[in-house]
Amino acid sequence: MTTQQRGEETRKRLLDAAQEAFALYGYDGTSVAEICRRAGVTKGAFYHHFPSKQDVFLELLERWLEGVNAQLAALRAQSRTVPQELVSMSETMRRVFEEAGGQLPLFLEFLAKAGQNPQVWQATVAPFRRYHRFFAAMIERGVAEGSLRPLDADAASYLLLAFAVGMLALGLLDPQGTDWGQLTEEGLQMLLQGLERT
Amino acid sequence: MTTQQRGEETRKRLLDAAQEAFALYGYDGTSVAEICRRAGVTKGAFYHHFPSKQDVFLELLERWLEGVNAQLAALRAQSRTVPQELVSMSETMRRVFEEAGGQLPLFLEFLAKAGQNPQVWQATVAPFRRYHRFFAAMIERGVAEGSLRPLDADAASYLLLAFAVGMLALGLLDPQGTDWGQLTEEGLQMLLQGLERT
Repeated sequence: MTTQQRGEETRKRLLDAAQEAFALYGYDGTSVAEICRRAGVTKGAFYHHFPSKQDVFLELLERWLEGVNAQLAALRAQSRTVPQELVSMSETMRRVFEEAGGQLPLFLEFLAKAGQNPQVWQATVAPFRRYHRFFAAMIERGVAEGSLRPLDADAASYLLLAFAVGMLALGLLDPQGTDWGQLTEEGLQMLLQGLERT
Repeated sequence: MTTQQRGEETRKRLLDAAQEAFALYGYDGTSVAEICRRAGVTKGAFYHHFPSKQDVFLELLERWLEGVNAQLAALRAQSRTVPQELVSMSETMRRVFEEAGGQLPLFLEFLAKAGQNPQVWQATVAPFRRYHRFFAAMIERGVAEGSLRPLDADAASYLLLAFAVGMLALGLLDPQGTDWGQLTEEGLQMLLQGLERT
């Protein structure tokens, strides 16, 4: 194993250990020492890879979003019309509900901390801006291909993003309340009736 | 002043003092002693009115929601069609953005705590369930009056609620990002095109 491979291996071990510890003890309840103990790594090695516990959390969030993005890209590759693509995204939402289930308190705990640090806050808000641009580009494509009526892509993108964020928030607040995956699909179908060219 | 009036006056002073202190120091950073000092009230009097700091926060949340509900009821009283009523609700959202601006970190801090206590969590989730029923009743009325096409009221209500919650979350995360009041109105207009009878 080269030094670089060992470095990457250590980094991954730290991330996996942190994920386990956060799930068990919450964000505040997890110390850097606990993460190191689980990963079998020294504190020196930890700080070689991450400036702080906050950075570990941000990277875990990034890793999770990359999984979501890969799923979305796979949908793109099947090259259908934009409305068909949007409906198939409900499937991705279904997986997000499954995978993120029970993680909301942890995410809230982190967000509450992040609110006190402008730099971390920016890093937390950035994915929402990326998703807004992603949806806006999709909508422009839909208008160009003629599947969507002429729409303000900026406003329509916020409509889609707000719907997705709102369903996630409701579903994570109240996981047992109803079948969130199913409701997301039905809601999206209704919403699309307002956007499609008739 | 009767004993009851004095009691109500003290309760209100405690709530106002807590609101000020939470805004200045956050939820964790505010002690019951600080609330009492600002209200000019003894700890004994505090615990006569509220079992804990968490209950003060829940009652502040309730007071704020009552303001929102009063605005929604005033819209109802003008008795128009359901789609017109929904559009006029964007105005309420605009005020929510103004009044809640800067309060998100505080709310997140509280939610993160609430997540650790099932009873407080239930009290926090309850308003969402109430709003869901509120929208479902509106949709049924819209279908009955013929302004909305025949819709699954349950799913359509979650669509509206998720849109509102999502816009609020995005707007509070990133208050300077864009004109959230304007985007809420435009998004709602697009969404309604999918719900209205054509």
